[in-house]
Amino acid sequence: MSRLGIIAGGGALPVALAAADPTAHCVAFAGAEVALPEAQVERHRLERLGALFDALRAAGVSRVVMAGAMMRPELDHSALDPVMLSLMPRLAQAMQGGDDGLLRLVIALFEEQGFAVIGAHELLPDLTAEPGLLVGDQVTETTRGDIQRGRAILDALAPVDVGQGCVVAGGLCLGVETLQGTDALLDFVAATPDHLRGERRGVLIKRPKAGQDLRVDMPAIGPDTARRAARAGLEGIAIAAGGVVLLDRPELLTTLRDRGLFLLAEP
Amino acid sequence: MSRLGIIAGGGALPVALAAADPTAHCVAFAGAEVALPEAQVERHRLERLGALFDALRAAGVSRVVMAGAMMRPELDHSALDPVMLSLMPRLAQAMQGGDDGLLRLVIALFEEQGFAVIGAHELLPDLTAEPGLLVGDQVTETTRGDIQRGRAILDALAPVDVGQGCVVAGGLCLGVETLQGTDALLDFVAATPDHLRGERRGVLIKRPKAGQDLRVDMPAIGPDTARRAARAGLEGIAIAAGGVVLLDRPELLTTLRDRGLFLLAEP
Repeated sequence: MSRLGIIAGGGALPVALAAADPTAHCVAFAGAEVALPEAQVERHRLERLGALFDALRAAGVSRVVMAGAMMRPELDHSALDPVMLSLMPRLAQAMQGGDDGLLRLVIALFEEQGFAVIGAHELLPDLTAEPGLLVGDQVTETTRGDIQRGRAILDALAPVDVGQGCVVAGGLCLGVETLQGTDALLDFVAATPDHLRGERRGVLIKRPKAGQDLRVDMPAIGPDTARRAARAGLEGIAIAAGGVVLLDRPELLTTLRDRGLFLLAEP
Repeated sequence: MSRLGIIAGGGALPVALAAADPTAHCVAFAGAEVALPEAQVERHRLERLGALFDALRAAGVSRVVMAGAMMRPELDHSALDPVMLSLMPRLAQAMQGGDDGLLRLVIALFEEQGFAVIGAHELLPDLTAEPGLLVGDQVTETTRGDIQRGRAILDALAPVDVGQGCVVAGGLCLGVETLQGTDALLDFVAATPDHLRGERRGVLIKRPKAGQDLRVDMPAIGPDTARRAARAGLEGIAIAAGGVVLLDRPELLTTLRDRGLFLLAEP
């Protein structure tokens, strides 16, 4: 098997991938927050994508996996290398749209350079959940209604490339995930005034967008998601089986159990 | 012309309606925050909707207008009158869905009791905006792109009955309005971390949902919206001509102008 390159972003996922494949070559963009030891990470500037491609090839990499939260880049246009200059029209167009358009372009760029782009869930199948109730005893009919409504909201948003998550409580949508991510969504829900929310608890529905390429930007939840969901008063989290990364799985499940939240994975 | 009944909620709109028609009979539900003098408002309990209908008829009211922000009711089921008891199956179903479903039901209930339900914008046509740039000199192509994207997002959400507003900045969706309203949306956008947002400013897009009945829950903006939009770093607000109430219009326009924000009304 040829050498794996990990394009690392924030969070626990790149760490798990690097641990699973000690021969992997880890790179990250300048300025990106990465939880790997800095000595283990080769830094590249996004403005010099050509140099990144060359370095990956020099390291014997032919397969790459992108993992972890990546920031939207601010480009220093005076520092672009020839490869990046030639890509600017495509990049500029993709950056006007949602995340998916940009990420599809990034995949295409690596593939055009001869790299195979694979998904973290293909390398670590245990990352995602099997269908079923992973934590909790049962889910009421009302809660099932909320989950269905959340899925309908996410499905409606997929064509406009928004939303890997939302919160629904007693039929009411209390928040839609946008650029700021799941943590910000849950903190927003936690701040809902009592007179609007009443006794409603609610569910975080977290799924890949319909038609999303899982090779980049897979949705993920972890122990911090569980803690914030509990602080937001939710009764549980509903995810897509096989489609959402469970970060720090043992701690995630324990945290949910300790706080009385369910975790349901649906096809 | 028969007497007008104003079912008053929060904000400036019921005040403007009452000022425009001194003969109007103002009612509000117990617990609702209303900016009218309390002596001018007859209070009713939602649990006793039958008594409200009777009181309106006794006051000679045959046309009603619902105006201002209304909270989702928490019903005391031990206090329901016969009319409300008979309505519970329909209410319970409507309350599982979005706001529109509930509000359509409320309109239907008044109509079934023989009242004509009219919209605030029909009584006060000057409440809404004519098409055009009301404040500001011009709108750039990038900004027009953001407005288009915002409209596409709202259109996508209309079938699932979510969203009278969203914020888009440089192609990125920074927030979708949910139950908590426009102010909460703008405060959420204001808290977006710099590393995600970069130099992007963005636009608040505020429109009725496609197909929404404007007789209840018309979207509204006012001076406070303008101040919060400025604090959120936005460059302007794009609304639906004829479809969004402008509260305290002179102060709204002055506030926008002073802070350098545009206001664009599109058909």
